[in-house]
Order: sequence, then C-alpha cells, then structure tokens
Amino acid sequence: MTDQETKTFDIVFEGVGTSTGKMRNDIKVHFVTMDETFDLATDEGPFHGGDGTAPPPLALFNAALTGCIMTQIRAFSKRLKVPIGKVTVKCRMHWRGEQVGREPYTTGPVGFDLDIDFDSPASTEDQLRLLEASKKGCFIETTLMQGLEVGHRLQIDGDWIDA
Amino acid sequence: MTDQETKTFDIVFEGVGTSTGKMRNDIKVHFVTMDETFDLATDEGPFHGGDGTAPPPLALFNAALTGCIMTQIRAFSKRLKVPIGKVTVKCRMHWRGEQVGREPYTTGPVGFDLDIDFDSPASTEDQLRLLEASKKGCFIETTLMQGLEVGHRLQIDGDWIDA
Repeated sequence: MTDQETKTFDIVFEGVGTSTGKMRNDIKVHFVTMDETFDLATDEGPFHGGDGTAPPPLALFNAALTGCIMTQIRAFSKRLKVPIGKVTVKCRMHWRGEQVGREPYTTGPVGFDLDIDFDSPASTEDQLRLLEASKKGCFIETTLMQGLEVGHRLQIDGDWIDA
Repeated sequence: MTDQETKTFDIVFEGVGTSTGKMRNDIKVHFVTMDETFDLATDEGPFHGGDGTAPPPLALFNAALTGCIMTQIRAFSKRLKVPIGKVTVKCRMHWRGEQVGREPYTTGPVGFDLDIDFDSPASTEDQLRLLEASKKGCFIETTLMQGLEVGHRLQIDGDWIDA
C-alpha cells in the first residue's frame, strides 16, 4: 500500500535503415524522446554474402540486452541502496535455424541466459532484490518476456499496405 | 509435400559486459558459431547519469532488429527470385515505463512497427511472399513473436545461484 504518486513515461526510438554494401545496412537511429541521433551499421561476414564492415545484427542485439540490464542494475543500485562494485554480465544467446532444401530458413530462440556478478558486499537477499527490480526495468527483457507481434507495412507503388 | 532434406543449424552469441564509465559498459561479443569477436559499448546520456560516450542500449536494439530483417530480405530475395532495389526499413519502437514515487521504474513494450520499401518491380504477391519469408527467418523477430523468459544466475561469494 502506498499513497505515492504513479507516473508514466514513454520511450520511443525510430531507426531508418538503408541497404548500402552487399549486405551492409546503415541505420540512423533517432531517440525521439530525447531528440538524439545515432549512426549505426550492420554487415555480415563473407559466409553470409557480406563484407564484414560492421558487426552482424545479432552482435548488436547481444550488446543491447547486456547493456540494458546493466543500465538498470546501476541505476537501481542507488535507489535501492544495494552497493555494487565492478559489474560483469555474461549474456549467452542461442538460436536454431531450420532449412528444407534451398528454401529460406526459419529460425527460433533456444534460450538466452545472463550470468551476473555485482561484485557486491550486500546480502544475498539484497542482491536478489536488486536483480529482480533490474529485470522488471529492463526494456528489452520485459519485451522478450511479454512477447510481441511486430507490425509490418509494405510500400507498393507509393501506397502502404498492411503485411 | 517435399522430399528435400531438412537441415538444422545453431547460432550462438556470447557477450561479456563490464561496467567502465559511470553508466558506460564495454561489451565483447563473441559470435561463437563463426568464432568472430566484436567490441561494442553502450552508455547513457547525462539525463540518465551517463557521459554519452556510446549509444544507449535501445539504439543498438533498434539497429539490430532493423539490420536483422534487412539481412533476411536481401538473402531471400535471391533464393525466392523476387528482385529488390535499394531497401529502406523504418523501425519504430515504443515502450512505456511506470514509476511509483522514487521506486525503480517498471517497463513494457507498447508496440514495434516496421515500414518496409523493397524498391521492387515485382508483383505485390511476390513482395508479400518475400516479406513473409523474411519475418520467419529474422532471428530477432521470431524471438519477439515467441516470447522468451531469460534465465538468470547471480554470483554470490564464488557460487552461482539461480535468480
């Protein structure tokens, strides 16, 4: 029970990717909420037809999840008064693909696992409390947990059609 | 019905993130399957207590999803013989956070939307077929679609405990 005020806030990112190299994509990401822009890129290695000029998309995804949970850990450490030292997070992501003949492959996740070391003098109970809050605050983890059907529109002859 | 052989393949990424700056994390991502390593970093802007030395985690996430669907589009264009020109993908991600007083905030997705332009002379039917295959091949989109509970372990006094 609390009589404290509940606030909500929105976080919006809009990226625009364009194909540049054989498999390279240059992506301008606009953090709409803060009006900041970041220039990012992905590529694939020669095995997948690319030139290896940038990390593959899944490397960015791995760093994104790792960095996102670490941001929450560090922000909430102060709020919950659970001291931490040098935080280390190992993030393992495993997918499996399936391909029939030469048809396009289909994919799905096998499992994602985070091994976390707070380097903390706090009690086990306090460390678990910090981790629990961090999971619930991590934008990527809560999205994965909830699941999400991405919406798609396709531009055909100048019109946008739901796809 | 097909008598073509079905193959499966595994894709594994392992990142290790360490806290470096105030909110900066340096993350070494190992693409285990191909034995390639990528040095990435995230930071936060001053508003969230960081120094803005690298993109925030959600900017990497946005570029990852955008780049991943674009990789599939370009790979499958050839296999499905659906010609494409300069591909452009706009990826909008919207989350909402909620905070009671000064407690740690909780977060959840509102919606993710992809607007895709293949710049293609192909029929609408063929373009839709290419998009459908790309959705099913995109590692990130199929993970979001399925939903996933991330596993966690916490290091306490040298032991790993499930958390």
